[in-house]
Amino acid sequence: MPSPAFAALADSAARIADLDAALGLMSWDQEVNLALGSGARRGRQMGTLAALRHRLLSTDLKPALDRAREAGPADAFEARNVAQLAHSLERALRLPDTFVHELTVATSHAQQAWEQAKRRSDFATFRPHLEQIVALKRREADYYGYAVHPYDALLDGYEPGGTAAQVRTLFERLLPPLRELLSWVRSRPQVDDARLRQRIDESRQWDYSLVVLQQLGYDFDRGRQDRSTHPFSISMGMDDVRITTHLQADDLQAMLYSTIHECGHALYEQGLDPAHYGLPAAEACSLSIHESQSRIWENNVGRGLPFLTSQWAALQGLYPDGLAGLTHRDVFRMVNRVEPSFIRIAADELTYHLHIVLRFELELALISGELAVADLPAAWNERFEQLVGLRVPDDAHGCLQDVHWSHGSLGYFPTYTLGSLYAAQLYATANVAVPDLESHLAAGNFGPLHQWLARNVYRHGRLYCSDEVCALATGEPLNPTRFTDYLSAKLRAVYAD
Amino acid sequence: MPSPAFAALADSAARIADLDAALGLMSWDQEVNLALGSGARRGRQMGTLAALRHRLLSTDLKPALDRAREAGPADAFEARNVAQLAHSLERALRLPDTFVHELTVATSHAQQAWEQAKRRSDFATFRPHLEQIVALKRREADYYGYAVHPYDALLDGYEPGGTAAQVRTLFERLLPPLRELLSWVRSRPQVDDARLRQRIDESRQWDYSLVVLQQLGYDFDRGRQDRSTHPFSISMGMDDVRITTHLQADDLQAMLYSTIHECGHALYEQGLDPAHYGLPAAEACSLSIHESQSRIWENNVGRGLPFLTSQWAALQGLYPDGLAGLTHRDVFRMVNRVEPSFIRIAADELTYHLHIVLRFELELALISGELAVADLPAAWNERFEQLVGLRVPDDAHGCLQDVHWSHGSLGYFPTYTLGSLYAAQLYATANVAVPDLESHLAAGNFGPLHQWLARNVYRHGRLYCSDEVCALATGEPLNPTRFTDYLSAKLRAVYAD
Repeated sequence: MPSPAFAALADSAARIADLDAALGLMSWDQEVNLALGSGARRGRQMGTLAALRHRLLSTDLKPALDRAREAGPADAFEARNVAQLAHSLERALRLPDTFVHELTVATSHAQQAWEQAKRRSDFATFRPHLEQIVALKRREADYYGYAVHPYDALLDGYEPGGTAAQVRTLFERLLPPLRELLSWVRSRPQVDDARLRQRIDESRQWDYSLVVLQQLGYDFDRGRQDRSTHPFSISMGMDDVRITTHLQADDLQAMLYSTIHECGHALYEQGLDPAHYGLPAAEACSLSIHESQSRIWENNVGRGLPFLTSQWAALQGLYPDGLAGLTHRDVFRMVNRVEPSFIRIAADELTYHLHIVLRFELELALISGELAVADLPAAWNERFEQLVGLRVPDDAHGCLQDVHWSHGSLGYFPTYTLGSLYAAQLYATANVAVPDLESHLAAGNFGPLHQWLARNVYRHGRLYCSDEVCALATGEPLNPTRFTDYLSAKLRAVYAD
Repeated sequence: MPSPAFAALADSAARIADLDAALGLMSWDQEVNLALGSGARRGRQMGTLAALRHRLLSTDLKPALDRAREAGPADAFEARNVAQLAHSLERALRLPDTFVHELTVATSHAQQAWEQAKRRSDFATFRPHLEQIVALKRREADYYGYAVHPYDALLDGYEPGGTAAQVRTLFERLLPPLRELLSWVRSRPQVDDARLRQRIDESRQWDYSLVVLQQLGYDFDRGRQDRSTHPFSISMGMDDVRITTHLQADDLQAMLYSTIHECGHALYEQGLDPAHYGLPAAEACSLSIHESQSRIWENNVGRGLPFLTSQWAALQGLYPDGLAGLTHRDVFRMVNRVEPSFIRIAADELTYHLHIVLRFELELALISGELAVADLPAAWNERFEQLVGLRVPDDAHGCLQDVHWSHGSLGYFPTYTLGSLYAAQLYATANVAVPDLESHLAAGNFGPLHQWLARNVYRHGRLYCSDEVCALATGEPLNPTRFTDYLSAKLRAVYAD
């Protein structure tokens, strides 16, 4: 039995979650359904809801939290929930109501502008929106306060406790082995994946995506898949967790791996405990742990031989030529092919992190004011060429490709790399802890891994920070060599012959 | 320039409209997208939003209204908006916060239960929900207060100023000519519409529905069409007005006329003035005037010879047999065929009103407590047979067919009949006022009628009551003989030969 003050706090937290669900639906709808002419007013409507939500934090959640603290927690579970709520609430209350409203309206408009700008590769029309967002995010960092760099204040919202300096150190440790691995790979005979780029009807791809989701354990009774420009997953509470995909007739691979990726996010959200809806106990830990859940399914599972064994018959059935003359080992090599390219979400597991380094550096420079938004395309293109070795042809393939900045999500990108690192570490542990894990995967039986993740990751909610969850699940905090070992072993197999 | 106090009032009203838009989207989503397992939590989330909205009425709108009243209106426009807002606000504030929350949760759950109950024709599973809703609506009537019948208090929410006694008198005046017309029609050789019941692919029907919407002037840049069990239209502000349709392969007619119907509602909402979003000046007048806008397009236009002339080539192209040997006059007779039947939304223009009389009588009895919910199916079936002359085979074809009661919309049904009456009166006036109206319609040029309605109906918003709008547009308040004259003339043409 929860204490009465804690029960009242849980009710109050659930009301905030209810408003988040409404805002989540409005945002989902904006990307999946909304007509262009409806965008401006929708932005203002979301601004009103966000402001109301923000006001409720001080008029409803804060008093309930204060009362729960006065009453004292009944047990360690209550204590941990209260402490986590207090931390995030204190942070949120540093933002004035008017600022929250302004930011919500600006990002909603920017999102519409970005969609059009990207379609036309027209940075000029997006520029004023991004300028406004960067200015707002700098103000936001000032409201939060920070010791060293304003970026720390923003990163903390996605990766509690994370700092720019830590990320920089991590990236400095990660870059040399990645670059070394990349030059070795580039010195080997290259892998050709042209056979995977055959035309497959979008409706057949769609049907296959639903089959894969079902196999992986996505619960269609508490969610749905739709199409959108940029695939995403979103939760309106654990009982309504939706994902989207993007279909292209000549790219089954893109559909398959983005579907598995979003499914990984959704399994995490659907796996949170409905009894604690609204409380930290039933919230995702952090963006990096969230990303570890998408990546463990997309990369460690989905790009592994066992998974491809499980899908081999389906894949042969889907391709017009039945992939005649190939084995699932050939497909394994193709889907793990390393090839420097322009688009982050289509990048391989190695060069992907070069894209992240680029964005991290540019975000740091934008937030510190060293880089003007007007100079972003040039700065992007120059540094991209240094890192990835390719010359960017246009902004749609450069600084306009991602939705994040139009969302106001500056400080978000590093969590993708952290997610890959956590994923490798979790997978290595699960592979020892779950008997015959890879035989199960090869047989299309994904339940044992799903259940291991539920027990070792999902059930902690955000009662612990990323590194604590990692340590609870794997016995040690983040250890990036788990990722470089994994990637190097895989690529040596791919590029061995 | 609006006075400052009025401008602040308009801002406050816009915030309420923003919350209404969020609730509207959640409700749209519930009928179009939501997975079954998500329904319970969605209900609670909507309850939270509705309660917040209700609280905002007293904490935000009421003070703004009081200040605007103190400051005094700058002109007649401000005065009228303030008066209308005051009337609806006073009514809304009679409901306690907790009641609003309870009703929203109950109707959201009931909506889910009704969908399942209707599918299985299983009244027993819906019964407890309806019992709860009837009890809540009786409490609601008590909160509002009433002079004669609790039904008056509910009807007033849909038809301001309307009373059960007025509706009863109107129906007593309407029933004899309708019954007389019906027996004359039944004495004539019957019209066979089997030729219209050929199988047409749902995707071709869908495409045709989009063409018709475009022709009628529906703005796809500020809305969209989807599929749902029960067709409906919903506005999230004039910039996002959505409609749904329901497709059946062997019933193009049902699709076509429900699409035109919902389009009529949507043209009205899209035609409200965006400059006054949230104010009575930019809200629909009443449900009966709303319904007049759907019915004028569905029946007076859509079932008329000129419209069928405009669609004749398209219809021939759609039907597998090209409607060979028929003329558009034959189709005119078929789509105006009178045939007593079970389902209200599929009923012809004559017997439709017998369905409404039935629901009105049953609602009166439920609300007064004379009829227990448990006895509803039997009462429905008995009275239906007296009125329509058919024996109801199961509850899916009887008391489970409509979504209204699960929505808590008791008192709503009479507005459908009022809508038909207003539509006939408006059409008769437009036909005189707009030069060559029917030649335009026959040429597929629907703009002149759309513009006449915009000038004579849409632009009044809800600054006037139904009868005032009717009088402004047609020169006289509601005159039911316009409808009986119209229907009798049409049916005499249909059943003449």
